[in-house]
Amino acid sequence: MNNSATANNDRAISDNKRRIMKISAELFAERGYGGVGTSEIGQATGFGKGALYHHIRSKEDLLFDIMTVYMQDLLQNAKSVLAAEKDTRARIKALSEALMRAVVQDKAQMTVCFREVHALSEEKRRTVLRLHGDYYRIWKTVVADATASGEFRRVTSVELKGLLGMYFYSFLWISDEEAADIDAIARKFAGIVLRACSNT
Amino acid sequence: MNNSATANNDRAISDNKRRIMKISAELFAERGYGGVGTSEIGQATGFGKGALYHHIRSKEDLLFDIMTVYMQDLLQNAKSVLAAEKDTRARIKALSEALMRAVVQDKAQMTVCFREVHALSEEKRRTVLRLHGDYYRIWKTVVADATASGEFRRVTSVELKGLLGMYFYSFLWISDEEAADIDAIARKFAGIVLRACSNT
Repeated sequence: MNNSATANNDRAISDNKRRIMKISAELFAERGYGGVGTSEIGQATGFGKGALYHHIRSKEDLLFDIMTVYMQDLLQNAKSVLAAEKDTRARIKALSEALMRAVVQDKAQMTVCFREVHALSEEKRRTVLRLHGDYYRIWKTVVADATASGEFRRVTSVELKGLLGMYFYSFLWISDEEAADIDAIARKFAGIVLRACSNT
Repeated sequence: MNNSATANNDRAISDNKRRIMKISAELFAERGYGGVGTSEIGQATGFGKGALYHHIRSKEDLLFDIMTVYMQDLLQNAKSVLAAEKDTRARIKALSEALMRAVVQDKAQMTVCFREVHALSEEKRRTVLRLHGDYYRIWKTVVADATASGEFRRVTSVELKGLLGMYFYSFLWISDEEAADIDAIARKFAGIVLRACSNT
């Protein structure tokens, strides 16, 4: 289980694979995982069914990749931010920007993730939840560091989960117009986190 | 369209109907709207198929009721809070508590709402979105009043939508343990809103 997630991370994902994932995620988001067959995916992506299977292994694996690869990208970015930035404000801003960009770029993947996670096998579902947990723990470290330095008050896990929900839920309501200046929304959300957690 | 939503609001919903909605919502949340047939709902609720149809009209109407009735309850409560309370802190606290109680009590309905809204006809989907819009506007009024009185800074619609997302998203992560003291979570979230919007 752990290995399959790690494997995706280590292995460079080909442009073809990413393209298949993106197009399939859009189809699944539009009509549901159950409502889209592999022959249709083959057609929409321009691959034959045989070439498609070379890239995706199975439809459930494709669903799993759709739900995990964007989170792995996000997690990798968050780890870099944690390592590179020490300033609380800069960290929150950088994490906000990366997350909101993902909300726009990977909107179909997020939609599929929230809507279809129950379609995964128990083991794969646990992997998805663990990835989300790993991502949460990066924020937790940022908040804990800021509490230790006196910038933040003590923030409970319920509060931090709530604040992250603000970000994740936004894929449901952000309009194309708002998405055009996503960094502006990211700054607004970062401001909310800073105000909500500030020690003053 | 407007009428069907209003009708539900005006008409007292029978205990039988509420029971059918709750049990169906749990079935839909577990296995998806498409994966549950009406004969199964008839069985799970203890009604025959004939008596069931007397209460639900059609499966799509049942889905629509599942998605709208909890929002109408929430909206009605929010309107009462707005009329009865003038103090910003008391308003936010009361709205928070009602919303978080709904997150726990109507978790299956919310799950179905977020996952299956695309299964509704365009007209019904618009009604669901309008209800959410109406609910958002109550909060908007509370925030605008608080800004007018100088308690809150000017809060943008993106920020308020973000803060409401914190509440709505929580149905995905609140554990049974956390749900046992839901008012505590409601107070934490109210605190975040107050800190995030405060003029100081």
